[in-house]
Amino acid sequence: MTKAIQTAVMGVTGYAGVELARLLLHHPRLAGKPPVFAGRVDEKDTARGGVPLTEIHPQLADNNGSGNLRLQPFSWNLLAESGVDILFLATPHEQSREWVPEALARGIRVIDLSGAWRLTNSAHRAVYAFKDEETDTAIATQSQAVYGMPELHRAEIASAKLVANPGCYATSVILAMRPLVQAGLVDLDSGIIADSKSGVSGAGKAPTAKTHYMYAADNLSAYGVFTHRHTGELIEQIGLDDNQIVFTPHLLPIPRGILSTIYVRFRTPQTHESVAAVYRDFFKASPMVRFYESSLPQIQYSVRTNYADIGFQLSPDGRRAVVVSCLDNLLKGASGQAVQNLNVMQGWGEAEGLA
Amino acid sequence: MTKAIQTAVMGVTGYAGVELARLLLHHPRLAGKPPVFAGRVDEKDTARGGVPLTEIHPQLADNNGSGNLRLQPFSWNLLAESGVDILFLATPHEQSREWVPEALARGIRVIDLSGAWRLTNSAHRAVYAFKDEETDTAIATQSQAVYGMPELHRAEIASAKLVANPGCYATSVILAMRPLVQAGLVDLDSGIIADSKSGVSGAGKAPTAKTHYMYAADNLSAYGVFTHRHTGELIEQIGLDDNQIVFTPHLLPIPRGILSTIYVRFRTPQTHESVAAVYRDFFKASPMVRFYESSLPQIQYSVRTNYADIGFQLSPDGRRAVVVSCLDNLLKGASGQAVQNLNVMQGWGEAEGLA
Amino acid sequence: MTKAIQTAVMGVTGYAGVELARLLLHHPRLAGKPPVFAGRVDEKDTARGGVPLTEIHPQLADNNGSGNLRLQPFSWNLLAESGVDILFLATPHEQSREWVPEALARGIRVIDLSGAWRLTNSAHRAVYAFKDEETDTAIATQSQAVYGMPELHRAEIASAKLVANPGCYATSVILAMRPLVQAGLVDLDSGIIADSKSGVSGAGKAPTAKTHYMYAADNLSAYGVFTHRHTGELIEQIGLDDNQIVFTPHLLPIPRGILSTIYVRFRTPQTHESVAAVYRDFFKASPMVRFYESSLPQIQYSVRTNYADIGFQLSPDGRRAVVVSCLDNLLKGASGQAVQNLNVMQGWGEAEGLA
Amino acid sequence: MTKAIQTAVMGVTGYAGVELARLLLHHPRLAGKPPVFAGRVDEKDTARGGVPLTEIHPQLADNNGSGNLRLQPFSWNLLAESGVDILFLATPHEQSREWVPEALARGIRVIDLSGAWRLTNSAHRAVYAFKDEETDTAIATQSQAVYGMPELHRAEIASAKLVANPGCYATSVILAMRPLVQAGLVDLDSGIIADSKSGVSGAGKAPTAKTHYMYAADNLSAYGVFTHRHTGELIEQIGLDDNQIVFTPHLLPIPRGILSTIYVRFRTPQTHESVAAVYRDFFKASPMVRFYESSLPQIQYSVRTNYADIGFQLSPDGRRAVVVSCLDNLLKGASGQAVQNLNVMQGWGEAEGLA
Repeated sequence: MTKAIQTAVMGVTGYAGVELARLLLHHPRLAGKPPVFAGRVDEKDTARGGVPLTEIHPQLADNNGSGNLRLQPFSWNLLAESGVDILFLATPHEQSREWVPEALARGIRVIDLSGAWRLTNSAHRAVYAFKDEETDTAIATQSQAVYGMPELHRAEIASAKLVANPGCYATSVILAMRPLVQAGLVDLDSGIIADSKSGVSGAGKAPTAKTHYMYAADNLSAYGVFTHRHTGELIEQIGLDDNQIVFTPHLLPIPRGILSTIYVRFRTPQTHESVAAVYRDFFKASPMVRFYESSLPQIQYSVRTNYADIGFQLSPDGRRAVVVSCLDNLLKGASGQAVQNLNVMQGWGEAEGLA
Repeated sequence: MTKAIQTAVMGVTGYAGVELARLLLHHPRLAGKPPVFAGRVDEKDTARGGVPLTEIHPQLADNNGSGNLRLQPFSWNLLAESGVDILFLATPHEQSREWVPEALARGIRVIDLSGAWRLTNSAHRAVYAFKDEETDTAIATQSQAVYGMPELHRAEIASAKLVANPGCYATSVILAMRPLVQAGLVDLDSGIIADSKSGVSGAGKAPTAKTHYMYAADNLSAYGVFTHRHTGELIEQIGLDDNQIVFTPHLLPIPRGILSTIYVRFRTPQTHESVAAVYRDFFKASPMVRFYESSLPQIQYSVRTNYADIGFQLSPDGRRAVVVSCLDNLLKGASGQAVQNLNVMQGWGEAEGLA
Repeated sequence: MTKAIQTAVMGVTGYAGVELARLLLHHPRLAGKPPVFAGRVDEKDTARGGVPLTEIHPQLADNNGSGNLRLQPFSWNLLAESGVDILFLATPHEQSREWVPEALARGIRVIDLSGAWRLTNSAHRAVYAFKDEETDTAIATQSQAVYGMPELHRAEIASAKLVANPGCYATSVILAMRPLVQAGLVDLDSGIIADSKSGVSGAGKAPTAKTHYMYAADNLSAYGVFTHRHTGELIEQIGLDDNQIVFTPHLLPIPRGILSTIYVRFRTPQTHESVAAVYRDFFKASPMVRFYESSLPQIQYSVRTNYADIGFQLSPDGRRAVVVSCLDNLLKGASGQAVQNLNVMQGWGEAEGLA
Repeated sequence: MTKAIQTAVMGVTGYAGVELARLLLHHPRLAGKPPVFAGRVDEKDTARGGVPLTEIHPQLADNNGSGNLRLQPFSWNLLAESGVDILFLATPHEQSREWVPEALARGIRVIDLSGAWRLTNSAHRAVYAFKDEETDTAIATQSQAVYGMPELHRAEIASAKLVANPGCYATSVILAMRPLVQAGLVDLDSGIIADSKSGVSGAGKAPTAKTHYMYAADNLSAYGVFTHRHTGELIEQIGLDDNQIVFTPHLLPIPRGILSTIYVRFRTPQTHESVAAVYRDFFKASPMVRFYESSLPQIQYSVRTNYADIGFQLSPDGRRAVVVSCLDNLLKGASGQAVQNLNVMQGWGEAEGLA
C-alpha cells in the first residue's frame, strides 16, 4: 500500500474549485486526508482560523464533519507544514504563472487548471499576454509542463511535475478530432469547423453582464469568433497548422455541459465502420471516453459525470462527417480531468473517485 | 383634439426603462413625439450628442428611425427646452427623492416608478431610510403623491401632479386582496398569507451574486421574509393593520412574471358565486384586470401584457380561499402601469398603447 | 381605399396558429374583420356554436370582445358564406396537400405554412413522401406555388394564388447565404456549413418524448443530421447543387428563437466592407431584415419580432467568414412571415401589423 | 458479516426508477449483486434476453459492465429463481395494489414508492379510488404497511414487511411540521399553510400537455388546490385534524427539487432559539436532515442529494414563523428515501450509498 498523499487546493471558491473539493473529499485514496484549502482570507477570518467551507458552498455540508473544513490563509509555510505533495491551482492565469515556479522549486507537484502553461508555441500564448513571457523561469517552467489529457499523454503525465489541465472547449474538440487526424483520414486543406456550445458555468463565478440571468436565459449568442483562447490548444493537440480549424464558442442557457458539433471532410470516402474503428481503437484503454457506436450523445448524458461522449454521423457519400462531442465543462472539462490526472500521476486506477 | 404632450424618461438603461421606452415609442397618442431620454452620459458621448438608444438596447432597433434616438446628457435645461410635460423616473429611490421636488417646482408632472413616494405612513417608510425624511420639502412632496393604481385611485390619478407607481409584488397582492377586504369578507384576525414568486428581472439589471445565472437557474429561494419593502404598500393599500399580513417573496428561475398565491379565511362561509361577485363588481370598470371565473391564471397568460390576472379556489367548507394573482413585473408591475397612469392623467383610454 | 378582405385560419390550435391569430386580430388593415377560425370541433362544440378561442389560448383573452371569437366547424360552405378571400393553413403537410387544390379551385388565395408546396424539385420532395405526388392536380398546384420569402420573391408573391411559406430553419439560413452566393463570393466547392439551433416551439405542440420538459431542459442535442426536411429549401433557394451544404439542426432549451452559425469560404479574400456592402445592397428594400454592421445578433434581439437579424465576422486572412443569423421561429420563421406575405399580396406596407 | 441480499426493481423506466437503479448499482452493500430489473418487455426483447438498461437510460452507461444489465420480462418465477429478498416497486398505484399482497405472500419484503399503501384512514384513501378498497386482502395488507419516513418511524421500518415510501411533497412538509406540532408549539386552530413548488420530474415521464417544455418553461402554475393526493399523508403524519392544513402545489420550471414555504402561528410567542431547539432535538439522530441554524435553504443546496434541508424565520413578535423546507423530489422525495429505508430494514448505516 502506498503512503497516503496530501493534496492542497487553491481557488476553491469558484465553480471548478467546489467541484474539485467535492471530488477530493470523496476520493477513496484520500480518505481521512482532506485537502488543505488555502486562499485569501481576511483578518477577521484569520482570527477564527479561516472561513468554513460550508459558508462558501452550503451544498458541501453534510452531517459527518466536512462542516469543520476551513479555507485557511495561504502561505508557503502552510503548504510546507502540511506536507503537501500535490497542489491543485484553480486560480486565474496570472496567479498560476507566479505560483507554479515556486511550488516546483519546493518539490511540490502541480496540477494547474488555468491556461497558464498549456501552450508550447509562444505565438499561441500571445493571446494571454503573460507579463513573464520572456523570463528564464517561465521558459524553464513551460518546458516541464505536460498537457493533462490522459487519453493523449498518459505516460508523460505519470511522471510529470507540472500538469497543465486542458481547457473545457479544447477537451471536447481534441478528443473528437485527434483520432481522425492522427489516422490520416481528414482533409486538412478543407479545414475543420468546430461549433461549440457551453453552459454558463464556463463563464466563471464573477457576476458580469454576460453571466446575468437575463442575458443568458432564453438566449444563445456566439462570441470570441476567430479569437478564442482555446484555439491554440486545438491546433497544438490535434496536430494542425494554423488556419486549419475554425472554432466558434456559444453561450448556452444551461448551467453546465458542452456540446461540440464538428465538421470534417475526409481525404477518401469512408464507411461508418471505418471511422468507428478508428475511435474504438484510439480509446480502447481510456475508461473516461464513451464512444457511441450508432447514435449521437446529448449534453444530458454526460453532465455530472467525468465522461467525454463522442458519436458521429457520416454523409451518404462517405466524404463528410458530423462529429458530436459532449462533456461536463466542470468535470471532464476541468476538475474531473484534474482528478483523472492525479490518478495517473499516482498510478491509481484512472477512474477512481470519478464514478 | 388635445395638444400633443412631451414626455421624458430618466433611467432608460434598466429593465423597466427599456419597456417604458418601447411602450412610449409605440403609443398612438405620442406618435411623432418620442420621449426625451435623459441620463448620465460621459464626455465622449456628449461630444457626439449622446448615446444611441440602440447601443444600449439592440432590440429597440428597427428600420424606421428609432435608431436615431439618443440618451442625452441630463439637465433641467434640457427638459425645459424640450417642453417636457410629463417626466417618468425609472431611477433609484434616492434619486427620485431628490429630483421629484425640483420637477414639481418646475411645473412638470411626474410618474415615479421607484419606491420613493409610495408610502404615507412614516413608520412604513423607515425601511427605506431616506436621508431627507424630515425635511419640509419631502413632507410637502409626499402629501401630493397619489398611489398609482388606477383600479383603486382612478380619480385622484387623473388630477395628480405626482404619481407614485406601485411596486410589482404589491400590485399583484393588492389587486387580489383589496376587493375581498373592502367587501368585509376577510377574517383579518387570522391574517393574510401572501406567498409571491417573481422572475429575475425584478432583481434589477446590476450583475450581482443573486442575479448570476448559476444562482437563479434550476433554483428557488425565499428572501426578505418578514422584512420586504413592499409590505408597507400592502398594509396601506389593502387597508390592514400591521401584522395582518405575512408576505414572502421568492426568486423564480424565469426572466419575468409574478405569481402570488394568497391565503385568506372568511368571516362567514362563502360560495364561489358570492366571492366571484365581489371581484366582478370591483373590476367592472377596469380594463386591465382579467378575472378568471372558474380557473386559475398562470404566469404565461399575462407575461408581456399589461393585464393583472386573478382567480381563486374555495375550500369545500367555504371558509378559506386560495387566490392566485399573476402579472408581468415589468408591465402591470412597473412600466405598463406607468403608461396606464399616463393615460388616466391625460384622460385617454386607460388601455391605449397597452394592447 | 381598398375593400376590406376576409381572412380565414385553419390550424389555430398550434403554436404558429395562435401567433397568426394574434397578428391578424391586431392587424390595422383587418380592423373589424376578424379571421374566420375553422377547424375540427366535436358534436358538443358544434351545438354551442364552436369552441371559444380563449378556451384554447387563454392568453388571447382581453376585455374588448375577442373572447367572443370561436373555432367553428370547418366546411367549404363556411368559407364560402363568410366570403373568405385569403386562407391561411397552419396545418400538417398532408392536410395542406389535400385542401390547397380545392381552395384554389374555389378562387381563394392560400398562404400555406406547411412544407407541402415549398419544393420545386421532386427529388427534394421525396423526403415528405406525399401520397399524391404523381397526380395531375398536385403537379398543377405545385406549378402555381411561389416560395413566400419577400426578400427573394417579392414580385411573384404580390400576384401569387398560392404562397408556400418557408420553413423556419430555412429562412434563417437562406437570408444569410443567398446574398453572398448570388454575389459570387462563396467557394461552393468547399461547401457551406450551417449549424442551426432552435427553441422547442419548433418541435410542435404535440406532447412527445422530445418535447417533454425533462428532455429539452438543461440539454442540447443534434438531430436530423444529413436528413432534415429543410435541406431541399436551402439548396433550391440559395441556389446550390446537392452536397454543397451540410445542415445540422439542434434542439435548444428555450421556448422560441433560432440562431444559425454559418461557415463559408470565399473564392477570393474579402474585406469586412466588401462583404457588408453585399448584405446592405441585397436588403436595402427589405424592412424586416436587420443587418448588423459590426456586431453579431443574438437570439434575444429578434425574439417576439418579425425581424431576421444577420451579422458576420471575417477571418484575419479574409478567406473565411462566420455568419450569424437569428429570428423568431414562430414569427419571421412562420406566422410573421405569413402576414408579411399577406401584406405583399395585398399591396400593403410590408411591415404593417408586424411592429 | 451479513449475507448479501438480492434486490429487485419494478418500474425502472421512470424518473424515480432510474435514480433507484443508479443508487442500488453503486450501493456498497450490494457490490457484485446488482438488482434484478423486471418489467414489461415485448416478444422481440424477450428473444434477446430483455432490453439493455442503457438503451432506456444512456446516462447509466459506463465502461465497467453495467452495459450488460437488462430489463427482464417480469414473472414471479423470475423473482423466485433470483432469490429476491427485497422488492422495490416504482410502479403506478394500481399495480402496487395488485402486486404487494402477492409479494408478501411469497415472503418478499417490499418498498413501495407509489401511493398505494401510505394512508391508514380510508376517508383519505378515497382520493385514489382503489378498486380493491373493501377486500380482506387489501385491509390485511394495509395493516402491515409502515410509513417509510425513518425520521418518524425508524423502529417500525426496521422490522417492516411492507414499507410505504412517502410522497415527495409530503416528505418536505411533514419533516418541517411534525417537530413543531409534536412539541405543541403550533396553534392548530389557525391552521397550517403549506405552499409547495416542485420541479417537472415530479409530474412523471409520460409526455402530456403539462409536461411539454412550452407549458412548463418560463411559467409557474398552481394546481390541485384543496384536492391534492398528498394532503392525507400530511394530516396523518403531522398529526392533524382535517381542515387544519391548506396545501397548494405549484409546477416550477426546473427539472428537479421541491421547496415548501410553510406558515404557522404559535400558541405562545417563541424565540429563535426555542424553535431551533425543537428541530435540533427532533433530528439529532437523523443523518439525512440538515437543519439550518440561521439561514434558509434553497433548492440548489439539496438537489442531487438525499438531504432534506429545513430552516425558518421568526416574525418580530415571535408569534408566526415561515419555515422553508427543500429536498430533491427524486431522492429524499422518492428513490433516495427508499434506499434509506432499505438501509434501516437491513440494519445498515442509514446514509450508506447515499453520499
